[in-house]
Amino acid sequence: MKLALVGIGKIAVDQHVPAIAASPDWEVGATVSRAGTLPGVEAFTDMARMLEKRPDIRVVSLCLPPVPRFAYAQAAIRAGRHVMLEKPPGASLSECHALEALARENRVSLYATWHSREAAMVRPARNWLSDKRVTRAHITWREDVRHWHPGQDWVFEPGGMGVFDPGINALSILTRILPAPVHLTRATLDVPGNRQTPIAAHLTLSGNVTAEFDWLQTGKQTWEIEVETPEGTLLLQDGGARLLIDGKERGADDEDDTLQGEYPRLYDNFARLVTRGGIDMDLSPLTHVADAFMLGERRAVAPFDW
Amino acid sequence: MKLALVGIGKIAVDQHVPAIAASPDWEVGATVSRAGTLPGVEAFTDMARMLEKRPDIRVVSLCLPPVPRFAYAQAAIRAGRHVMLEKPPGASLSECHALEALARENRVSLYATWHSREAAMVRPARNWLSDKRVTRAHITWREDVRHWHPGQDWVFEPGGMGVFDPGINALSILTRILPAPVHLTRATLDVPGNRQTPIAAHLTLSGNVTAEFDWLQTGKQTWEIEVETPEGTLLLQDGGARLLIDGKERGADDEDDTLQGEYPRLYDNFARLVTRGGIDMDLSPLTHVADAFMLGERRAVAPFDW
Repeated sequence: MKLALVGIGKIAVDQHVPAIAASPDWEVGATVSRAGTLPGVEAFTDMARMLEKRPDIRVVSLCLPPVPRFAYAQAAIRAGRHVMLEKPPGASLSECHALEALARENRVSLYATWHSREAAMVRPARNWLSDKRVTRAHITWREDVRHWHPGQDWVFEPGGMGVFDPGINALSILTRILPAPVHLTRATLDVPGNRQTPIAAHLTLSGNVTAEFDWLQTGKQTWEIEVETPEGTLLLQDGGARLLIDGKERGADDEDDTLQGEYPRLYDNFARLVTRGGIDMDLSPLTHVADAFMLGERRAVAPFDW
Repeated sequence: MKLALVGIGKIAVDQHVPAIAASPDWEVGATVSRAGTLPGVEAFTDMARMLEKRPDIRVVSLCLPPVPRFAYAQAAIRAGRHVMLEKPPGASLSECHALEALARENRVSLYATWHSREAAMVRPARNWLSDKRVTRAHITWREDVRHWHPGQDWVFEPGGMGVFDPGINALSILTRILPAPVHLTRATLDVPGNRQTPIAAHLTLSGNVTAEFDWLQTGKQTWEIEVETPEGTLLLQDGGARLLIDGKERGADDEDDTLQGEYPRLYDNFARLVTRGGIDMDLSPLTHVADAFMLGERRAVAPFDW
């Protein structure tokens, strides 16, 4: 199936293009981007024009930042195209609800992707926890914004979510692996004096679950979730790529899962979703982020510059 | 039916107690409050003790501020009681989802009330708009926090929502009367330098809908929603108590609705909900507030003191 890739920036080039190239299901039939293009692929700068000129393309994958994404998704769905959304699926919960309603109305598939959920050991972690009682869990998500988002000012602008841009990846794994839902009860958000969104956050959720997000971590980067149960302690490392139970590493070959990489799995999921028809839109990670903004205590911290 | 009234503060005394006294369905069988009591009614300071000692009371109405409310609601539902929640139904969306799941599990009724939706002319407004196309809408909600929440510091603490405490009333009416859903696209939040939550806010929603919330309005208080359609302009005034179409006032007697007052209607709704069983938990007003906190641009304004 041909798809249009919309928003040819860092995430598209680093992740989407290789995943599509390696997929037996997909090829890029067109791009829509103000600046980026792909070699040998018809390039549009205007979404409406692509939708009009390329009726052969029934599927659109959106890799734009969250704030402008809604208008593109809306246009694609109204034009009867199936849509795949980079995470987070929108800049607001209510626009996600609106997209979902629009997709139902237009009988197209809509897929809100959470790439971190496709990390190799997330499913094994979920399976291991499924029959256990969680007594404590802690997320440690520390990375260097200057390395991962160099010069991308939009992450610190309203709607850009700040450190929740990576933090929502952790929350997407947490909400996938825990055997029962949790809810936010307290948060502190550290916001640089010259910016709008937090550069660090501490969350407290029900059920003895805590999270620590930090965007100023140089050197070793940490993406870890530790979950304690009476039967032992689970540790997901490297953003879900490694799994240890009581310190002993589990291999992915314990599971029937041969497809490699987060984005290849997303495109594989999407191919199956489009084939069977339907909507896959789990908003729980975004709900926790919205709750943190609503409920969080803000502390002013040192100004941030690239 | 006997109910326990939990949180005997200003809203309980001003609104809940008179509404219950006037109701043919309800009487207050007990109170739970750290400080407040009602004459001739058994008073508890501990929720667990009330739930244990008064098995005859099957229904609990919670008038506490949003942050502490969850624990009381959870205890009541787990003890098999039906629960009515003051607005907003929680300090976070995820805790509302948790309460709803818990109520289903325990097969009790749960009612997230939005008192402003019960203002006399909200239903006539909804009916008038139901077959019309909205071309523009604007909310003006200006009141004096010192008059309505004297000394209540919790409204400016994290989770207290600030000017969204009254603003959510406007949003509860808006989401009830508009014929199609809208979503937030932009917000500015004016936060006093010495406080955590906004004292004023401007919202822009899809479909040419805007809102202006202000908590420093002395003198005349304004709670107005204007909605333009090709067939004429609707104006809800006084928080929904008055309705004008193209400047001409409509009377409540145009509608079959004899019950007077917002809180009497809430308790009437709740009696019917408990009788037939079920959950009434529309989170759309709270979703717009969470979106405004997540998406809003914060501006520091003058410190606020009582």
